Amino acid sequence: MTQMNQLGVVHRTIQRADPAAVKALAGFGSATVHEAMGRVGLMRPYMRPIYGGAHACGTAVTVLLHPGDNWMLHVAAEQIRPGDLVVAAVTAECSDGYFGDLLATSFRAQGACGLVIEGGVRDVKDLTEMRFPVWSRFISAKGTIKATVGSVNVPVVCAGVQVQPGDVVVADDDGVVVVPAAVAAATAEAAAAREANEGEKRKKLASGVLGLDMYKMREPLEKAGLRYVD
Amino acid sequence: MTQMNQLGVVHRTIQRADPAAVKALAGFGSATVHEAMGRVGLMRPYMRPIYGGAHACGTAVTVLLHPGDNWMLHVAAEQIRPGDLVVAAVTAECSDGYFGDLLATSFRAQGACGLVIEGGVRDVKDLTEMRFPVWSRFISAKGTIKATVGSVNVPVVCAGVQVQPGDVVVADDDGVVVVPAAVAAATAEAAAAREANEGEKRKKLASGVLGLDMYKMREPLEKAGLRYVD
Amino acid sequence: MTQMNQLGVVHRTIQRADPAAVKALAGFGSATVHEAMGRVGLMRPYMRPIYGGAHACGTAVTVLLHPGDNWMLHVAAEQIRPGDLVVAAVTAECSDGYFGDLLATSFRAQGACGLVIEGGVRDVKDLTEMRFPVWSRFISAKGTIKATVGSVNVPVVCAGVQVQPGDVVVADDDGVVVVPAAVAAATAEAAAAREANEGEKRKKLASGVLGLDMYKMREPLEKAGLRYVD
Amino acid sequence: MTQMNQLGVVHRTIQRADPAAVKALAGFGSATVHEAMGRVGLMRPYMRPIYGGAHACGTAVTVLLHPGDNWMLHVAAEQIRPGDLVVAAVTAECSDGYFGDLLATSFRAQGACGLVIEGGVRDVKDLTEMRFPVWSRFISAKGTIKATVGSVNVPVVCAGVQVQPGDVVVADDDGVVVVPAAVAAATAEAAAAREANEGEKRKKLASGVLGLDMYKMREPLEKAGLRYVD
Amino acid sequence: MTQMNQLGVVHRTIQRADPAAVKALAGFGSATVHEAMGRVGLMRPYMRPIYGGAHACGTAVTVLLHPGDNWMLHVAAEQIRPGDLVVAAVTAECSDGYFGDLLATSFRAQGACGLVIEGGVRDVKDLTEMRFPVWSRFISAKGTIKATVGSVNVPVVCAGVQVQPGDVVVADDDGVVVVPAAVAAATAEAAAAREANEGEKRKKLASGVLGLDMYKMREPLEKAGLRYVD
Amino acid sequence: MTQMNQLGVVHRTIQRADPAAVKALAGFGSATVHEAMGRVGLMRPYMRPIYGGAHACGTAVTVLLHPGDNWMLHVAAEQIRPGDLVVAAVTAECSDGYFGDLLATSFRAQGACGLVIEGGVRDVKDLTEMRFPVWSRFISAKGTIKATVGSVNVPVVCAGVQVQPGDVVVADDDGVVVVPAAVAAATAEAAAAREANEGEKRKKLASGVLGLDMYKMREPLEKAGLRYVD
Repeated sequence: MTQMNQLGVVHRTIQRADPAAVKALAGFGSATVHEAMGRVGLMRPYMRPIYGGAHACGTAVTVLLHPGDNWMLHVAAEQIRPGDLVVAAVTAECSDGYFGDLLATSFRAQGACGLVIEGGVRDVKDLTEMRFPVWSRFISAKGTIKATVGSVNVPVVCAGVQVQPGDVVVADDDGVVVVPAAVAAATAEAAAAREANEGEKRKKLASGVLGLDMYKMREPLEKAGLRYVD
Repeated sequence: MTQMNQLGVVHRTIQRADPAAVKALAGFGSATVHEAMGRVGLMRPYMRPIYGGAHACGTAVTVLLHPGDNWMLHVAAEQIRPGDLVVAAVTAECSDGYFGDLLATSFRAQGACGLVIEGGVRDVKDLTEMRFPVWSRFISAKGTIKATVGSVNVPVVCAGVQVQPGDVVVADDDGVVVVPAAVAAATAEAAAAREANEGEKRKKLASGVLGLDMYKMREPLEKAGLRYVD
Repeated sequence: MTQMNQLGVVHRTIQRADPAAVKALAGFGSATVHEAMGRVGLMRPYMRPIYGGAHACGTAVTVLLHPGDNWMLHVAAEQIRPGDLVVAAVTAECSDGYFGDLLATSFRAQGACGLVIEGGVRDVKDLTEMRFPVWSRFISAKGTIKATVGSVNVPVVCAGVQVQPGDVVVADDDGVVVVPAAVAAATAEAAAAREANEGEKRKKLASGVLGLDMYKMREPLEKAGLRYVD
Repeated sequence: MTQMNQLGVVHRTIQRADPAAVKALAGFGSATVHEAMGRVGLMRPYMRPIYGGAHACGTAVTVLLHPGDNWMLHVAAEQIRPGDLVVAAVTAECSDGYFGDLLATSFRAQGACGLVIEGGVRDVKDLTEMRFPVWSRFISAKGTIKATVGSVNVPVVCAGVQVQPGDVVVADDDGVVVVPAAVAAATAEAAAAREANEGEKRKKLASGVLGLDMYKMREPLEKAGLRYVD
Repeated sequence: MTQMNQLGVVHRTIQRADPAAVKALAGFGSATVHEAMGRVGLMRPYMRPIYGGAHACGTAVTVLLHPGDNWMLHVAAEQIRPGDLVVAAVTAECSDGYFGDLLATSFRAQGACGLVIEGGVRDVKDLTEMRFPVWSRFISAKGTIKATVGSVNVPVVCAGVQVQPGDVVVADDDGVVVVPAAVAAATAEAAAAREANEGEKRKKLASGVLGLDMYKMREPLEKAGLRYVD
Repeated sequence: MTQMNQLGVVHRTIQRADPAAVKALAGFGSATVHEAMGRVGLMRPYMRPIYGGAHACGTAVTVLLHPGDNWMLHVAAEQIRPGDLVVAAVTAECSDGYFGDLLATSFRAQGACGLVIEGGVRDVKDLTEMRFPVWSRFISAKGTIKATVGSVNVPVVCAGVQVQPGDVVVADDDGVVVVPAAVAAATAEAAAAREANEGEKRKKLASGVLGLDMYKMREPLEKAGLRYVD
């Protein structure tokens, strides 16, 4: 499959990440998951949740929209399976509000657990009351048209990250991270290992132990040339 | 009246939109109103409320400020009538905080229901506690001076929209929309018509009916060239 | 001390502002303090608190970071004394998340009352639950490395303001203002004088008295050429 | 005419500013004209010419576009009369390239002297070689569609300024200023008066006379509290 | 290959697009190529050439950098083959100047025809004199370090577009477009077809024929509801 | 001297950097100077020259302006000595055009070699013809008023860098760097040392030698974990 035939296509069959791995990843925050992958896979920080405390983890149904046109979101609704999270890219920057409470009602009815969109969203009060989490670049009441076909379940680039249909998306207050399906299980394990001794560290730091000592940084800092002056 | 004599003028007599229409518009959100007008009249999405859940609908008292100078807001206070909403434009981009809790106290005492300003605002904690809603481009503690006269109740452009004194302004979490006084009643009707069957649609979508079917999109999508791949 | 030897240095002895002045300043908001200093000392408005209602006042421990490298925050932790507030500058714009809940735990254990950073922060949900206030330019899950030494307790420029170690930093919903240690007491006095009759003014304005009359603006406005049209 | 019927309309008959006034205004730069109007009428500074030294002055044919759709530019071409300058607004921010060398060829053939567009433009190398001046917010190769009707020769807001069909637009390296048709002649006179003694002033300043003396600023500065320290 | 092992890897063997297709694509501008691909593949418009008239077409050698660290550009130099164009992505936004005249000298010696970098560049005067074309997001004198390994010739996302090693990159004054190697030949053909009758069109438009007639738009416009008012 | 008395003050006597050091620094570009200082002292990259090839090196006369008010630039003119470069900061972000060709004529007559301003500039065509170099954040025809006193020759923060009167400013196409007067001579020496063997390096790289070998990077890269894949 090449980019040239990506417009006007809906892929009905996609390979979703292993459900066990998705479930495991759901227990971690975006910061931990992104570190576990080697500090890659994070969307640009302009992607913000519409309400504080939003958290979602699901398998990506991807959508490619045209600026000011949300037709493909309706097409995408049919491809949603329980546990999916819709990821929408737009072929050019446009602040329109592509998504509101009616689409959210439909997405939830099909089983979606959230939306990530590199564009605008509206009805944020309703969405907040519904607790349907959306991460977007803009909030805008501006409506869209239904005139040009885009695609569903093709690879897209959203906020600086390549997303394949079926990849795992973990989103919370800190941002949105994409885990390729093939490494979902390994990433969940690495995340678990990372968090294993965080409680211990937190306790030490809270008791007044310095990171300088806990992480044994004094010697490397001295070697790197750091000097103290009274 | 031309732009050349717009500086240094206060118009005391303005034609406010019909109160019944204002009241009717107050029942709708900015997204609905903006759609009802044909998707025009919406300010740029960088205009954000200072607290979540803010909502206001009123007739515009307009102000033209100079950068870093809030003198005209005091002049505008006298022109406020109950139910008005002040709309402030600035002749150049400047992030200063032109408005705070004292002015809000005065505006409210005169009957204003909110402020929309293409500049900065401060004392947001106090304003939030007062529940005096403000939509602004910036939040900034930076104070202003009182040195240069601007105007009150002249046509202004605020965040990309022309506002005439007396126009209706509807503002909420999704943004700020301006309804010309002459079309306020017609817009309220169109908004009501738009919302009439939203409940029905929401119920259908919630039950799992797809927008593709409810809106009869399958045929036009096929005609537009959309193809499905398994 | 010149800029040329500022890299790789930690100053252990700094002159903190007078504790009585710090305590006095803690009673005012950033807007009042900034006005009391003559409308200077305010950081750029892109510095925002990670949660609404955040408020902090402390003496600055300064840090100079390199883009994508948070090593010096660990070094800074050791220099924190109760009542300090850490101010972190970065030598180039970079949206990485340099600070999270483990560092916050450590900073708090050492007595810090907050962080101001011209970069990104993560774990904002945890920080919010801890009520550890942070003012930052970005929120980002993106982690950092520990490879290059910067400095601690050197003069830094953060968000457009020069900060000396020991200066007083007052931060709240409206922004972040820096008070040089040498003028902390005088600024607190000026702030108190400023607020002394605010209650009186608020009462008058609430009763319907106009600022035009309370501030005797009518004559200067007329002299400045303002004219009224019916 | 109200905003509600502005979509889908082409006004064939517009009142262009007096040709003598347009010719007179063409002799001045945007800075002079904007000052002559009382420091209003200037578009936001993000509107930049595609090549250095660009200069144009003409009567506005206005266009209202939808994001990502340039259909109305073709409709506008027919309404161009010699000496017109096309001003294009978009109902939402979108960086697409709405205009290129073919449209420029057509616009020029109809007599247009330039384009001002709050969106993107492409083929800038060709446009530069043709010396067809364009002021835009973006440069982008991204093409557009022809799906939704907008309007031609309705009042539009472009880059923060209200433009009526027939208004005079003066654009150069410093920006774009809009002169309402009704005040075009008066503005040209004011601009001429403003420039009358500029040569004299320039000569004095070049000889070393200070503005402080030439403009007699020393006394007002002292009154304003300025003090000198050796 | 998954994202998890993408850090710290240099792929020495990559599949470059067919040289004939690259040569053919070099004859077209970015706007034409992007249209020929169906209006996809274009980088964000903030990617700008460092000098006017810059033009390059080559096969991508990709680099993944860390913020403020240009070590991998030296590693990439060895992988350059004549006709390549280096595409550099950074794992977070950082405005540092990663590339200057020494690296340009080395890249040119290895056969590179240009650089596209989602970061900063310096020595622009020297690069301009050398006519070594660079498209970047920032211009900055800020130097970088060499501390952390990234990767060379892995898939990267640069300015919103996925780039595979060996893809064709066409860049000019209008922007940067990426053509997947697999569709390079087909895209070149489509571009040629697109340009075939442009000369004819240009001649007609220059003679005064309107696009409305040439493209037969009058009927569809009327159907879409456009109405004319005198 | 504290910040509290910085407003309304003109310091007539300032300590300018050693002329020999200024002359020496004038021979280097901003990138070299900034590296010679240890990668500090560089202004934010949004400071851009108004014409390509601009270059200036001089001792700073500093100015603190209020938004939309250029009064202090006239006051500063009197303090200029041959070889000075004016650095203007503004107490809040405002895009107005504070400086044009008349002020440039005056500044040049007093001996200034350029201007760096964190605000807007106008008359750029005239300034370009005069070859009076300006580095600014904005270009805007918008005029300013003369109402509020700021200061001259106090420490200011401009585009993220603290500037003391008398410091050396080196500005070119790559940006603006500030060298504290106390380290001007040492910085010039370090810059000279840095450039000493650049010619040699350039020659080697041009002949095809790789930076990997010339800088002996292969071993540290391997230690850092870089691996090659065929």
